Amino acid sequence: NIRNLAMEKVASTVMFPCKYFASGCNAQLLHTDKQDHEEICEFRPYSCPCPGASCKWQGSLEQVMTHLLAVHKSITTLKGEDIVFLATDINLPGAVDWVMMQSCFGHHFMLVLEKQEKYDGHQQFFAIVQLIGTRKQAENFIYRLELSGHRRRLTWEATPRSIHDGVQSAIMNSDCLVFDTSIAKLFADNGNLGINVTINLC
Amino acid sequence: NIRNLAMEKVASTVMFPCKYFASGCNAQLLHTDKQDHEEICEFRPYSCPCPGASCKWQGSLEQVMTHLLAVHKSITTLKGEDIVFLATDINLPGAVDWVMMQSCFGHHFMLVLEKQEKYDGHQQFFAIVQLIGTRKQAENFIYRLELSGHRRRLTWEATPRSIHDGVQSAIMNSDCLVFDTSIAKLFADNGNLGINVTINLC
Ligand SMILES: [Zn+2]
Ligand SMILES: [Zn+2]
Ligand SMILES: [Zn+2]
Ligand SMILES: [Zn+2]
Repeated sequence: NIRNLAMEKVASTVMFPCKYFASGCNAQLLHTDKQDHEEICEFRPYSCPCPGASCKWQGSLEQVMTHLLAVHKSITTLKGEDIVFLATDINLPGAVDWVMMQSCFGHHFMLVLEKQEKYDGHQQFFAIVQLIGTRKQAENFIYRLELSGHRRRLTWEATPRSIHDGVQSAIMNSDCLVFDTSIAKLFADNGNLGINVTINLC
Repeated sequence: NIRNLAMEKVASTVMFPCKYFASGCNAQLLHTDKQDHEEICEFRPYSCPCPGASCKWQGSLEQVMTHLLAVHKSITTLKGEDIVFLATDINLPGAVDWVMMQSCFGHHFMLVLEKQEKYDGHQQFFAIVQLIGTRKQAENFIYRLELSGHRRRLTWEATPRSIHDGVQSAIMNSDCLVFDTSIAKLFADNGNLGINVTINLC
């Protein structure tokens, strides 16, 4: 298979530009590295951070908040480092997302609570925070999610995700606050679940 | 069905002694309340607190530590309010229990980490602390279990269970620290998982 070997040799030495060249990326890459780079390239357009993937919007980081305010008007915003994310009717059947915005330290954070059945017959809740910003900006923060109940407390602390990465892969890996419906019942009040959210600089 | 009605009338007015009368309980109960009382009667014998239910020992609270030291010699004890419960080889397949003892405030606590498949194809870990003592004694304490990793922390705080109640019903209800194998991997080091355990008076 001589022809393929020749092609591979070319591919292993020629440098290609990143596909976001026109958006400002100057990276030159080997064919084998190109796809990995483009996945994390900071010039890759941002997708709409709303969970559920029904919105197909893409654009620059600067345009994300404008998009959210124009198209996803129903999302509530609370100001402050320490707020309560109140998810109502958590017993609603099926896959459900709860979303709100928290604004502090001059940044906007999107709080997501997702109920889904990753495993058959076992509903779980996944709560996570993403920064409307780059991965580098996200690394300056730490978020804490806390469920508080009668003589019980469950806490998760981590670095916010950047909306450039999104939350779905973290939810797939359980790299977020995970709890099942039994725990939700321990902490819920009348079907409503309050999650204390605190954002800190680190 | 006249005969049953008559029996029910008798049963609803006659008082019966608790079945642990000989052990010191003086409670007199209606037939309808008898079973519920005996389930929580403080004179009910204590069962061996080791998870797995292979040991059928029963006895008084005073005899539990003697039993553990004599029959379950392999269980490690650490002294102090703040210790690390190191579970080795957490990737072992199947249902596995890790157990150790923590001794502080003049009491002995049993730390249990249980891996099981409550839901088909979804292995989960359940970590919990039980006091070698009564429910009333347990209410004086609060325990904290903490998983700490790279820019991530998962914490559970609650009242210890009394060994009189045991841990199985709490595990069934997820009323403990629950995490799946993906989270275990985030926090484990070379297949070993360290859980920080802190006991406090409250
Ligand atoms: Zn690029
Ligand atoms: Zn959108
Ligand atoms: Zn009794
Ligand atoms: Zn035993």
